[in-house]
Amino acid sequence: MSQNTLESWTDGSAKQAILDFVTAATAPGPGFVEVADRIATFDNDGTLWVEQPLPPQFDFVFRTWAEEAKADPSLAARQPYKAVLGQDHEFFKGVAAQDPQVLTTLLEAFTHSWAGTTPQEFDAQVRAWMTTVRHPTLGVPYTGLVYRPMLELFDFLHANRFRVFVCSGGGRDFMRVFAEETWGIPKENVIGSAAAYTYSDGRLLRSGELLGSLDLGAGKPEHIYAHTGRLPVLAGGNADVDIEMLAAARFALLVDHDDEQREFAYTAGAETSMAKAAQLGWTVVSMKNDWTTVF
Amino acid sequence: MSQNTLESWTDGSAKQAILDFVTAATAPGPGFVEVADRIATFDNDGTLWVEQPLPPQFDFVFRTWAEEAKADPSLAARQPYKAVLGQDHEFFKGVAAQDPQVLTTLLEAFTHSWAGTTPQEFDAQVRAWMTTVRHPTLGVPYTGLVYRPMLELFDFLHANRFRVFVCSGGGRDFMRVFAEETWGIPKENVIGSAAAYTYSDGRLLRSGELLGSLDLGAGKPEHIYAHTGRLPVLAGGNADVDIEMLAAARFALLVDHDDEQREFAYTAGAETSMAKAAQLGWTVVSMKNDWTTVF
Repeated sequence: MSQNTLESWTDGSAKQAILDFVTAATAPGPGFVEVADRIATFDNDGTLWVEQPLPPQFDFVFRTWAEEAKADPSLAARQPYKAVLGQDHEFFKGVAAQDPQVLTTLLEAFTHSWAGTTPQEFDAQVRAWMTTVRHPTLGVPYTGLVYRPMLELFDFLHANRFRVFVCSGGGRDFMRVFAEETWGIPKENVIGSAAAYTYSDGRLLRSGELLGSLDLGAGKPEHIYAHTGRLPVLAGGNADVDIEMLAAARFALLVDHDDEQREFAYTAGAETSMAKAAQLGWTVVSMKNDWTTVF
Repeated sequence: MSQNTLESWTDGSAKQAILDFVTAATAPGPGFVEVADRIATFDNDGTLWVEQPLPPQFDFVFRTWAEEAKADPSLAARQPYKAVLGQDHEFFKGVAAQDPQVLTTLLEAFTHSWAGTTPQEFDAQVRAWMTTVRHPTLGVPYTGLVYRPMLELFDFLHANRFRVFVCSGGGRDFMRVFAEETWGIPKENVIGSAAAYTYSDGRLLRSGELLGSLDLGAGKPEHIYAHTGRLPVLAGGNADVDIEMLAAARFALLVDHDDEQREFAYTAGAETSMAKAAQLGWTVVSMKNDWTTVF
């Protein structure tokens, strides 16, 4: 095992479980994992960065929809524009809880909004949002709200010859804009829900269709297998939509948002995964107790 | 630029063009390519290994279909089983030329044949084929018919911090069985046409549906962008179905099968790509003149 650099992790049971797993995975013995099989996958929203009051991508998308509805008032009577303009809390609760049905509706509208755009156009819009918009209560850009302990875990896994992938229900192309500078993860290691692109006359144009399934629930191991040819040996998540991915891994980390001082305390959307963690022996990471630093 | 190890390449214009491109890509100057952008993509059949008399995957598939037709004689009257059992040369010509329409028919039958199987079952079948079946005229297993100069090129690109991907119209899951041991390419760097998988009750099962488009023609840059978030800076191919991928790259290699002594001499399926090479300044690799060793 390569040197421990999990500096923002307290010396508790979660850190010890990680160290024990990686020690076993990299040393001869029954827990050894072939280098080729060392695939680690992590959810994004709530696992790598703040997802309250809403996953950050929705901030980006909702601002776009609000502008679209202002430019075309006929949209204001329709969902999801109506909910965005009217600040519909029930609707937002479904988004925050990553309710698959709500997310399906949103992602369909999402793919539709950018149909016909090039990757460069989309990237520029995300980059402008990243550099100008701040989190509504924490007051810093969203890319400043990445959990430092998880980045240290990435470094630790890389040092032990794991390949780390991010696997989120959110937009693959959205995450890829900041993946390399924010996480140190190459774009090709980002797996997510995605619009199809068509290539003609020498350029890529986003279509109005989703490419395959949403990367949520059972979609996560499906996307991971399609992308990597394997299932993960280590996985990290924080919500019910991560259950199948976590259950597919030999070692699973479940982030528990129990730190209302430094981040947020909530269980919505994670009730079943907390029960599964107890049942299946997953390692629960208490943000409050296991992390000395959050951001 | 890292040391030149292209030992099986003669000191001719093709080798020099590769060296010039990589020198420029890795040194400060107008041809410099950021490390993050150093994506190289290569077709498989006819670019990395023999594709005559047929792409090897079809040998695997046709043997399976012949067995299926023997077990269920009603299949023998239907395509593609009829063509396989009857050794229909016209049909095989369309396969050899990678005629997209023929390939679509085949891949639909292909996904159907293995519907309901697990990755482990499919892998075991491919592995049995790899180790027992020999090329009909060259007399060695197909994995012995990989072009050594291309493997040296992979090493050379890796040494210069390129990430190398294989991008084939053939089956992604088929290639992934031997990618790591044969090419030194991790499974996650193999892009191809693929069946969808569904995950339930803790296991993956192959569905009867293709996942997205076939990885041919315009499908190649589409698949590469979906997988990597970029288009390639360097690409290698040998056929008309590679044109869009080659045109998307800054530096393109086109393998010309002109060596009937050591391999095969043919132009079927590559007529347009040869014209494009002249028009767009691609580097044509003569197997006869540019390679001192083929296998």
